[in-house]
Amino acid sequence: MTPDLWSALQAQRIETPSWGYGNSGTRFKTFAAPGAARTVYEKIDDAAEVQRLTGIAPSVALHIPWDEVEDYPALGAYARKQGVEIGAINPNVFQDDGYRLGSVCSPDEAMREQAIVHLLDCVAIMKQTGSRDLSLWFADGTNYAGQDDLRARKHRMRAALKRVHDALPENGRMLVEYKLFEPAFYATDLFDWGAAYAHCLKIGDKAQVLVDLGHHAQGVNIEQIVAFLLDEGRLGGFHFNARRYADDDLIVGTSNPFELFCIYAELVGAAKSTDDLTRQTAESVAYMIDQSHNIEPKVEAMLQSVLNCQEAYAKALLIDQDSLKEAQAAGDVLGAHRVLQDAYKTDVRPLLMEWRESRGLNPDPIAAHRASGYQQKVAQERGTAQGGGGYPEKKTAQPV
Amino acid sequence: MTPDLWSALQAQRIETPSWGYGNSGTRFKTFAAPGAARTVYEKIDDAAEVQRLTGIAPSVALHIPWDEVEDYPALGAYARKQGVEIGAINPNVFQDDGYRLGSVCSPDEAMREQAIVHLLDCVAIMKQTGSRDLSLWFADGTNYAGQDDLRARKHRMRAALKRVHDALPENGRMLVEYKLFEPAFYATDLFDWGAAYAHCLKIGDKAQVLVDLGHHAQGVNIEQIVAFLLDEGRLGGFHFNARRYADDDLIVGTSNPFELFCIYAELVGAAKSTDDLTRQTAESVAYMIDQSHNIEPKVEAMLQSVLNCQEAYAKALLIDQDSLKEAQAAGDVLGAHRVLQDAYKTDVRPLLMEWRESRGLNPDPIAAHRASGYQQKVAQERGTAQGGGGYPEKKTAQPV
Amino acid sequence: MTPDLWSALQAQRIETPSWGYGNSGTRFKTFAAPGAARTVYEKIDDAAEVQRLTGIAPSVALHIPWDEVEDYPALGAYARKQGVEIGAINPNVFQDDGYRLGSVCSPDEAMREQAIVHLLDCVAIMKQTGSRDLSLWFADGTNYAGQDDLRARKHRMRAALKRVHDALPENGRMLVEYKLFEPAFYATDLFDWGAAYAHCLKIGDKAQVLVDLGHHAQGVNIEQIVAFLLDEGRLGGFHFNARRYADDDLIVGTSNPFELFCIYAELVGAAKSTDDLTRQTAESVAYMIDQSHNIEPKVEAMLQSVLNCQEAYAKALLIDQDSLKEAQAAGDVLGAHRVLQDAYKTDVRPLLMEWRESRGLNPDPIAAHRASGYQQKVAQERGTAQGGGGYPEKKTAQPV
Amino acid sequence: MTPDLWSALQAQRIETPSWGYGNSGTRFKTFAAPGAARTVYEKIDDAAEVQRLTGIAPSVALHIPWDEVEDYPALGAYARKQGVEIGAINPNVFQDDGYRLGSVCSPDEAMREQAIVHLLDCVAIMKQTGSRDLSLWFADGTNYAGQDDLRARKHRMRAALKRVHDALPENGRMLVEYKLFEPAFYATDLFDWGAAYAHCLKIGDKAQVLVDLGHHAQGVNIEQIVAFLLDEGRLGGFHFNARRYADDDLIVGTSNPFELFCIYAELVGAAKSTDDLTRQTAESVAYMIDQSHNIEPKVEAMLQSVLNCQEAYAKALLIDQDSLKEAQAAGDVLGAHRVLQDAYKTDVRPLLMEWRESRGLNPDPIAAHRASGYQQKVAQERGTAQGGGGYPEKKTAQPV
Repeated sequence: MTPDLWSALQAQRIETPSWGYGNSGTRFKTFAAPGAARTVYEKIDDAAEVQRLTGIAPSVALHIPWDEVEDYPALGAYARKQGVEIGAINPNVFQDDGYRLGSVCSPDEAMREQAIVHLLDCVAIMKQTGSRDLSLWFADGTNYAGQDDLRARKHRMRAALKRVHDALPENGRMLVEYKLFEPAFYATDLFDWGAAYAHCLKIGDKAQVLVDLGHHAQGVNIEQIVAFLLDEGRLGGFHFNARRYADDDLIVGTSNPFELFCIYAELVGAAKSTDDLTRQTAESVAYMIDQSHNIEPKVEAMLQSVLNCQEAYAKALLIDQDSLKEAQAAGDVLGAHRVLQDAYKTDVRPLLMEWRESRGLNPDPIAAHRASGYQQKVAQERGTAQGGGGYPEKKTAQPV
Repeated sequence: MTPDLWSALQAQRIETPSWGYGNSGTRFKTFAAPGAARTVYEKIDDAAEVQRLTGIAPSVALHIPWDEVEDYPALGAYARKQGVEIGAINPNVFQDDGYRLGSVCSPDEAMREQAIVHLLDCVAIMKQTGSRDLSLWFADGTNYAGQDDLRARKHRMRAALKRVHDALPENGRMLVEYKLFEPAFYATDLFDWGAAYAHCLKIGDKAQVLVDLGHHAQGVNIEQIVAFLLDEGRLGGFHFNARRYADDDLIVGTSNPFELFCIYAELVGAAKSTDDLTRQTAESVAYMIDQSHNIEPKVEAMLQSVLNCQEAYAKALLIDQDSLKEAQAAGDVLGAHRVLQDAYKTDVRPLLMEWRESRGLNPDPIAAHRASGYQQKVAQERGTAQGGGGYPEKKTAQPV
Repeated sequence: MTPDLWSALQAQRIETPSWGYGNSGTRFKTFAAPGAARTVYEKIDDAAEVQRLTGIAPSVALHIPWDEVEDYPALGAYARKQGVEIGAINPNVFQDDGYRLGSVCSPDEAMREQAIVHLLDCVAIMKQTGSRDLSLWFADGTNYAGQDDLRARKHRMRAALKRVHDALPENGRMLVEYKLFEPAFYATDLFDWGAAYAHCLKIGDKAQVLVDLGHHAQGVNIEQIVAFLLDEGRLGGFHFNARRYADDDLIVGTSNPFELFCIYAELVGAAKSTDDLTRQTAESVAYMIDQSHNIEPKVEAMLQSVLNCQEAYAKALLIDQDSLKEAQAAGDVLGAHRVLQDAYKTDVRPLLMEWRESRGLNPDPIAAHRASGYQQKVAQERGTAQGGGGYPEKKTAQPV
Repeated sequence: MTPDLWSALQAQRIETPSWGYGNSGTRFKTFAAPGAARTVYEKIDDAAEVQRLTGIAPSVALHIPWDEVEDYPALGAYARKQGVEIGAINPNVFQDDGYRLGSVCSPDEAMREQAIVHLLDCVAIMKQTGSRDLSLWFADGTNYAGQDDLRARKHRMRAALKRVHDALPENGRMLVEYKLFEPAFYATDLFDWGAAYAHCLKIGDKAQVLVDLGHHAQGVNIEQIVAFLLDEGRLGGFHFNARRYADDDLIVGTSNPFELFCIYAELVGAAKSTDDLTRQTAESVAYMIDQSHNIEPKVEAMLQSVLNCQEAYAKALLIDQDSLKEAQAAGDVLGAHRVLQDAYKTDVRPLLMEWRESRGLNPDPIAAHRASGYQQKVAQERGTAQGGGGYPEKKTAQPV
């Protein structure tokens, strides 16, 4: 293993989401998982377990108000004590009855204002937690043609984004997430990367696009969007997960691992670019997981997610860039493709075991976790929280 | 208006679902709707309002256990007093924590047995309510490749369907619904019409396929599936709704009204077939609505749904079958297409107003409903039930 | 009929494509159609027939080199004599063997230069034909991951677009078309509206996005893209056609007529906007048909296409804008949707017949065409050109 | 390497298609490839080269009339002399002008008869070539709603299939291929596996379903269809290729190699089944490639295809079936998934090199091919045939 490869692996970072440790489900059912985290403290404990075992998941994203506390500095101290940092702040503007017609795009000005106030509150929290990123997802959209004026909603979105942008801390950023559909089924206000990009461009330098792997139409080439945004200096981060159909929110890398590899290949390529903007953009990307573990154990699922990212990245690092460029320049279609495939086909598990051992980690984090009794321990301590439908309700997610 | 058209309109039937009158939502949020029905009695009241105004929605489907009561004959009497009948019985084998890995396809034999017992209980309820149809939807499936043995699950599905089939009453039927995905995101055990058809064929004559308009992959031609199943004598019924993306469960006819028309065109064509099996199958089709009214008023949404079906059917009745056949036989591609389009482009609203007036109905059911104060009245009487996430939980759906 | 409606109908324009009158096909087969136009003169004759019958198709788009001539002013004079004008110029940078790896994005600099020279030649033709629009479609893309460097190709695309842009005549425009896939099956260099928009924005004011209705992923809401681009002042024009699956290139409005109506509804709304940029953008949109009539008679298919656009536009003009705005502002989801539906459900055929009669046109252009013997006449005069595979080859498309 | 693994690898068979060695393209362009095979003899030469290098591609499928000859026994002798056998016979009922409205489903009885006669001619050829399989693909379908009667077309399809079935040789089979769309864009007569299966079931024991990996809607789980058909005893064979969008016909395994692995995993599982029908069905599957190499060298592309299948199969053979069953039975969702992933992540290239060397083959067939000068030799000998549009025309494909 070359020193470059070693240090690249050492520098990899995957942020896990607090909400990935609690119960979540589909609209039909949230299965109650024994030991699922009930409070932000338990979520931090779980995130710390993932970091302890993998060494590359040193931060945890918060969701407000699910993770709301009185004292954020104290929460940060608690997290650090467990071995993790507070990462991105994720506002919630989709779970009030008043948001029936949208939040920042609602035709009701009062609801728009309520939503913006919440977003600004989250900016204030960022400052307390020292978070760099405000991660924005809007459920805004319409279900029926004619329900609302699409251009008017676009203007409302832009005005809201602008206000929040201008309130961001000095080195803060806002990550603007797009999604084709769900929960809106006619039109989503931020419907694709182009819409998010157009807004970011007009709003200011702190606005960057966030790519969630499950938010595209079928067939869309995500690595090409990644390459395009990197080249334009507007890729802010990822929400990693896997999908086959819609926004399935499965464990990243389980449905089409080659796609995940191709995405990392673009990121590795951009990080080696001679173009300053592209390279710096690649270096600032926030890698975050956003999944919904409906039927599988939460912590084990998150471990698997982090490890799948690590394997994809390791393979991308193995791409022979010189051979690739040479074959591309020569128009050697299959030769160039095989350079990528050669890296992809390599079994990087022995290499990663070696890396882990050199860092004092167990070479097999999943086996270590299963052997540790962690899951049994939290199941006993925490019991089985009632599932209910869908995502957690605000009211049931208050910290103890 | 010809007598044939008149009597066809008179004979049209659309069954509304009890669950369409209560709160429902996406995995992110169920918005609390003022006046949403809380009990099976209130749901029947709402269904009766839809029947009163439209005259073609004379039955209401039940969902067990959401609509469970002690005394089904009494419930039937209550319904009849309001002006509607009890229609199809819909079991629920997806909301127990034990169904995490499936119901009749679960690797856990005890859960399979529990599910089958519930299905047989529903057969018993059918006999009490006098329902012809047991409408079966399974959330069964897997989220990850390898999670379970696909062929073994298929065998479990067949065995369960067979047991239920053989317990059906003399003139009873089971409608086997398929769905591409959700809540399973790798493989759904009844994943398409072909799978449902293959099972029905092997199980027996009382097993028929149910087509839900929102359960297909993008691009799939639903009217062709309808035509195929009609011709094979295996189309049992519909769950009507509209979608653009996934199983959006919007008001039928709102996303692509031409598609709904084309489906009715196949049904009208089959009903005129000289083939006995095809014609009898067409005559026995159960037309049912299955939607999730997340942001719109429940009763108004259901009225709109029924009226959209009526308009689509009326247009399909206007197709000049002789001209169509003639153009088809002549290979006149655009001429044949225009015969269909001529019917579709016709504004059937005046004709339907005339029909309604002849039946003593208000010519504009929606306006009549909005003017009636019904929505305000139930909002006052029933208040606003808490929404929560997703579909109603079993425990909150007990009748008062 | 109000004077406003009358004059709006009078002002509608649909440009037909020269290539829609010749033989075209799928990769499997081009069926030889009797009377299909063989030369640009015959194509102009056919376009003139469509204009004669509809009154709203006064121009014809050219494809170079399929329609290449020595003397463009003479060609223009010929067209005017038949009753039509020369419209947009469409370069062809996809039918040389050298374009195997792309044209302006090819890794081979010589091929890039050849492609750009052809584009500049087409700019020169624009100046001779007096065309406002250069309509650019690129088949550029890759078939395999790694085949070429996606960011390098993006840079090549931008450089080429910039050179062409800066050579455009004073009032000229370039319309940049995007397409998800075909003939490239891994990545298309201009893969969606966002990519086209980002390039246009960086290149200059004469660069506008062209929306082809068949170039999107499944589920994508095209009217929302239209609204977004109108609001950003970057919608340049349309290639109208219909699709259910991929880029099917069927007759516009045949697959989902409600979608076509919703697109026109956005255009009508934007044309009434108080925002100058939005309104002026809407007023400058180029409406063009781009279809492949594989099995249907060419001229009749084009007539049908133009009439389908006319009906969709007429319906959109009937939308009660005040009621729509009122219902939207009140959050009346279904009320607002019904305002749109009321216009859509109206049978506008009598109104359009009235309009045609007032203009001295036959009220039923299709029937008039079929009765005229035009098709029989050209079949006799032109005979049946050999079909072959796919689109016409350069060499077979030279004018006589 | 275990003896079982060794013998399984030894028994693997991939049939290559004659048409994969000639020029082919998209509807926009067929690029002329230097050395592309022009005659059936040259195609056999290329297939023999693939067999020589891989050892697992011992047969070549013919396409009639592209590969029509006077003397099939002589052709077979020529093939055997080169080291390959004649495999499946593929009729062509889509390239006559008379097939504009379909072949066996055409409303024109004369065309239906012409098509059936051609199919029966191909049965006669089967008997001369000793082929087991008649591989049937129909371009039949419609482009517009109403164009033809869907149920009537279904009856015509069944009648044709029945006639051909009953003419098959004793041990012959017909493989019935389905396809969602293209070249038909409204409805394809054999639109999915369910349609093909339903026909096969009613027609007879020699009718089996053929799965082409590119013929499904987006999201469809192909391995589940494979499992279903294996279990029903109706999987006849494959047309292997890769796709991201439509029927892209790229090199199998290049777009989503995990999917190809999952398909082989089902086949390996079925081959170990205790159910006789399932096991025998798995053992009789015909593995065939069907691709369109538009921009890449033909022989190298085919080598790559065969090797990708070999790697996927080798990985599937490595699945620890006992551990898989155990984890599945225990409901260990992620544990079971990891058993699959463990096999998939293994780098099987060293193992396959070892196997090749033991068979006297070059361990790296691609490198061997590139070093051999074969491509340069045939380019010199054969020159560069003109490409044209789309697939080869009948008339240009006659043997020299």
